[in-house]
Amino acid sequence: MSDRGHIKLGAFLHATGHHVAGWRAPAAQADAGVNLRHYLDMAVDAERAGYDMIFLADTLMVKPGSLDTMSRIARYTALFEPLTLLSALAVVTRNIGLVATATTTYNEPFHVARKFASLDLISGGRAGWNLVTSANPAEAGNFGGHAHPLHAERYERAREFHKVVLGLWNSWEDDAFSYDKESGQYFDPAKLHALEHEGKHFQVRGPLNAARSPQGHPIVVQAGSSPAGRALAAETAEVVFTAETDLERARAFYADVKGRMPAFGRDPEHLKIMPGVYAVVGRSEAEAREKNDQLQRLIEPAVGLSILGEMLGTDLSGHPIDGPLPDIPTTNGGKGRQEVVLALARRENLSIRQLYTAIAGARGHLTVCGTASQVADVLETWFKTEAADGFNVMPPSLPDGLTDFSELVIPELRRRGLFRERYEGSTLRENLGLPIPTFKR
Amino acid sequence: MSDRGHIKLGAFLHATGHHVAGWRAPAAQADAGVNLRHYLDMAVDAERAGYDMIFLADTLMVKPGSLDTMSRIARYTALFEPLTLLSALAVVTRNIGLVATATTTYNEPFHVARKFASLDLISGGRAGWNLVTSANPAEAGNFGGHAHPLHAERYERAREFHKVVLGLWNSWEDDAFSYDKESGQYFDPAKLHALEHEGKHFQVRGPLNAARSPQGHPIVVQAGSSPAGRALAAETAEVVFTAETDLERARAFYADVKGRMPAFGRDPEHLKIMPGVYAVVGRSEAEAREKNDQLQRLIEPAVGLSILGEMLGTDLSGHPIDGPLPDIPTTNGGKGRQEVVLALARRENLSIRQLYTAIAGARGHLTVCGTASQVADVLETWFKTEAADGFNVMPPSLPDGLTDFSELVIPELRRRGLFRERYEGSTLRENLGLPIPTFKR
Repeated sequence: MSDRGHIKLGAFLHATGHHVAGWRAPAAQADAGVNLRHYLDMAVDAERAGYDMIFLADTLMVKPGSLDTMSRIARYTALFEPLTLLSALAVVTRNIGLVATATTTYNEPFHVARKFASLDLISGGRAGWNLVTSANPAEAGNFGGHAHPLHAERYERAREFHKVVLGLWNSWEDDAFSYDKESGQYFDPAKLHALEHEGKHFQVRGPLNAARSPQGHPIVVQAGSSPAGRALAAETAEVVFTAETDLERARAFYADVKGRMPAFGRDPEHLKIMPGVYAVVGRSEAEAREKNDQLQRLIEPAVGLSILGEMLGTDLSGHPIDGPLPDIPTTNGGKGRQEVVLALARRENLSIRQLYTAIAGARGHLTVCGTASQVADVLETWFKTEAADGFNVMPPSLPDGLTDFSELVIPELRRRGLFRERYEGSTLRENLGLPIPTFKR
Repeated sequence: MSDRGHIKLGAFLHATGHHVAGWRAPAAQADAGVNLRHYLDMAVDAERAGYDMIFLADTLMVKPGSLDTMSRIARYTALFEPLTLLSALAVVTRNIGLVATATTTYNEPFHVARKFASLDLISGGRAGWNLVTSANPAEAGNFGGHAHPLHAERYERAREFHKVVLGLWNSWEDDAFSYDKESGQYFDPAKLHALEHEGKHFQVRGPLNAARSPQGHPIVVQAGSSPAGRALAAETAEVVFTAETDLERARAFYADVKGRMPAFGRDPEHLKIMPGVYAVVGRSEAEAREKNDQLQRLIEPAVGLSILGEMLGTDLSGHPIDGPLPDIPTTNGGKGRQEVVLALARRENLSIRQLYTAIAGARGHLTVCGTASQVADVLETWFKTEAADGFNVMPPSLPDGLTDFSELVIPELRRRGLFRERYEGSTLRENLGLPIPTFKR
């Protein structure tokens, strides 16, 4: 069976859940941002179900905007910082991968390289870094107040940032440490390498004060889908977390990114493309629809307008809510996401209200509502037609949405031979079928 | 009984131990930097013994210098990053405090405020931030390669950094989150406060995306003992970890720092002064001496010269090893530590070799070698004569040195009524007898 034999699954554990009103669902853990037990239990459950990885998003801000509106949204308020949280989750798990987002726009590569290397060692080789550029200009205000850099500049910095981080992860050869009490040699000086990076954005001497892990170093995940994002992913990513709603668009994206890889000397099987999937699952179709309707009824218009404005990078509050979407200027935020939402609005001719309802859960990701069999049908089609190597599962509310997917959809995928019966190994690379990188100078 | 009733104890868990050759001791866990189990076991043991806190040092570099010499030293090579490590330790403990070092010189206050706030929530209110300025100029090379800032400038930045972090920890009032599923209000907008800091070194808008913890916010620890360090400590610190070898000097330091506090409107009981203590403990005095001699015999001259040079901020390799210390220029590194070591050399008229042997374990901290009763005598005297509120215990090698102190010295302190029988509470502030800070604007 080729590396594509099994669907890869991420558990995207976003605090109270992905639906903008998900925190109001009866079973949602509304205090997720201060509740470690909530995350420990979900991590153990996700590992028992066999997900490849836990995935955590991140932002470096409380979202600005109308305080009255923001006070009705759980996202972007107060959440655990992902690296500290994943280190805690590492202790109660043994196989599942641990992937956190860290922006290249408002971080230093030495800190990022080190924290992920540390998580990788703490977890025995299960860490992943979701490399992003900061889409929300509000983060600039927390880091010196300079103007938020433009999209192209952010990607230029991201590319150099990635190069520095990878270089730092290659500071110590795999067998550098001898720990020889008898001779007094702690490490072999020939196996320690300074980086001496001198670039446009960074000067970093190195070496990093962290050893390599059982999987060599953390995997690199990316989420961008703009042309700049695709190019960077083809060159550097090992997992791409992307937002697609349409099978043909997704297949074109898949073919495009994988097609760019040989030019960088890379094997297309060494990158796993995992679109987000927002799944509302029921024991019957009617039960799934009722769950979905319950959540949609909980969206207040101001909240809906706010999340739509965020996705489009513009303020929509002046426009009639049941009218069509006005012309939207090109954003300096997340370009790929803006395009997906605009395409959805045009394709289905949606009013502003219909559009925010459509994205209130999935935020531009593939949405499926139905029985386990119906959800599995969609995932199987996307997987088999090369629109996806796997999926990042985005439960509407948590922890119940994770349980639904784990207990209903995963057994169905297993029945179809599409998902693992047990973990292939103890490192994230082994489970994703990614090679362990050899030490590189 | 006043707040001084019990000695406070930190477990300074430095990888393989504090003696420069400690990693070569038969019982030392030489691969500490990649061995999570080593730390998990020590954390559980330290909590069982009743220490107030686990304390972790940090550096943002592999120490430069002769590779041949450095390859014979375990410190400054490759260790877990402290915040990720403490988050893991939080999961296996319930009462013990978790204190990590983070420099103000090569960090951003938003990141520091957030990571410690996250650890504080993960641990249920047990986090502490050891605020330092970077003493080693080599760190500059990993963060842009600019010149390492001068001592005075580092302290100016540190003061403003502290102000920003404290401000960010006061972003959300204690009861800001309503989580009201019925009304849809997640938090009370009147209880969220942006910082809007505009200073010389930092512009930080805030608010922080982390809620307050059961102890309000992390405690602030400081280690500086220069005049600038003392002034900052009197104004802002809740624990001072200091290096003293002489009772009268320690009493003077204690009186000086506490004496400065009322000018800042602070109660001297709200700062705990905890010198480091390097204790080599045996079941007999002879056993302790033999342990000590074993370690001292393992120091190679090049290694000894290197650590002495580091403490003094100068290269000593050209001078006769059995001759006297030459004149030493004032350092731009850690000034307080340089002064302590110079005073020791002059007071005891030590050769270079004698001096590096004297600091090879304790690095300028109080050194005690003997039985539990002899060690307890010293600690009791220092405590009762107001040279210390407690001690940061620096085991020569780990994990065995921690076990020695826990199983021999702590029971003796308890017999004398000097140490707790059980934890006073579940937060670090409760156990240290520090007030929980009220929300401040």
